[in-house]
Amino acid sequence: MIESKIKSTVRDVNDFPKSGIVFKDITPILKDPALCGEIIKALAEQLKGIDIDVVAGIESRGFLFGPSLAQLLGVPFVPIRKLGKLPYKTIQQSYDLEYGSATIEMHEDALIAGQKVLIHDDLLATGGTVVAASKLVMQVGAEIAGYSFIIALDFLKGRERIGPYCDKILSLASY
Amino acid sequence: MIESKIKSTVRDVNDFPKSGIVFKDITPILKDPALCGEIIKALAEQLKGIDIDVVAGIESRGFLFGPSLAQLLGVPFVPIRKLGKLPYKTIQQSYDLEYGSATIEMHEDALIAGQKVLIHDDLLATGGTVVAASKLVMQVGAEIAGYSFIIALDFLKGRERIGPYCDKILSLASY
Repeated sequence: MIESKIKSTVRDVNDFPKSGIVFKDITPILKDPALCGEIIKALAEQLKGIDIDVVAGIESRGFLFGPSLAQLLGVPFVPIRKLGKLPYKTIQQSYDLEYGSATIEMHEDALIAGQKVLIHDDLLATGGTVVAASKLVMQVGAEIAGYSFIIALDFLKGRERIGPYCDKILSLASY
Repeated sequence: MIESKIKSTVRDVNDFPKSGIVFKDITPILKDPALCGEIIKALAEQLKGIDIDVVAGIESRGFLFGPSLAQLLGVPFVPIRKLGKLPYKTIQQSYDLEYGSATIEMHEDALIAGQKVLIHDDLLATGGTVVAASKLVMQVGAEIAGYSFIIALDFLKGRERIGPYCDKILSLASY
């Protein structure tokens, strides 16, 4: 039910960010407050039975629903950001892009060893950023509780790439 | 009360993003779910009596509380993003930085003419981005209902720079 609502609301944008890619634009979801509320509840519902101490969200679109999810779960939110954006001491992980590489950061004191961390982003594509985020979490001795996405593009095989880190990969809508 | 809680939780980081700047790091707030809940309620409380159709939040830190505020107000959330991030057709505004300039974008169909838009960001500094965001809103015939920040650095004179666009500039904590 939520899956069909998400799929009928998301907008396909052709050739973004480059020719041949069909981008799933979630901004029409953000325009629908009732649907946003349902999504946050459905994300939390999917996570029932999973022990979560912290939600870590990936910049920028992981900030749109991640803090609301953390709030509903009653746990802290930790931002994982692009290089150079976090002001305090950070740890870093780089990952390969199709051309070149990118680096993400987390504050070195964002997590405590042993905490169970849910990694959240709006959309799972190839999983490169999510794997790098997983390494940041493990680098400080915290554990991966699971992964939570609104949308998963399963044809890009992100689940297989993430699988070695944790088998709890949840999404509300899959393509 | 909320102001003293915010001020005692925010972390001052010296020399970020460059020498001589004392950066207000809000990530310790995000680690405190009870305080996050209080902030969202206090932001909404401050806005009582103001007619708001939409919350527009500025990337990235305006995405941390903006969608939760929109959700509590029961209105759509519109993301205003850095150049090249929004997939659909956009309108743009550039603004001056100390060295060079920056450009922000909004989807051209994000707002409807006549809508009353609350512009939200985590922190008001010099106001340059906020003025550019205001111009985006007005460019499509929408109106500025007000501005909502968690923190305002009043010594940087942002309120004076924004003042010509709307006199409703609210913040929970001021320096």
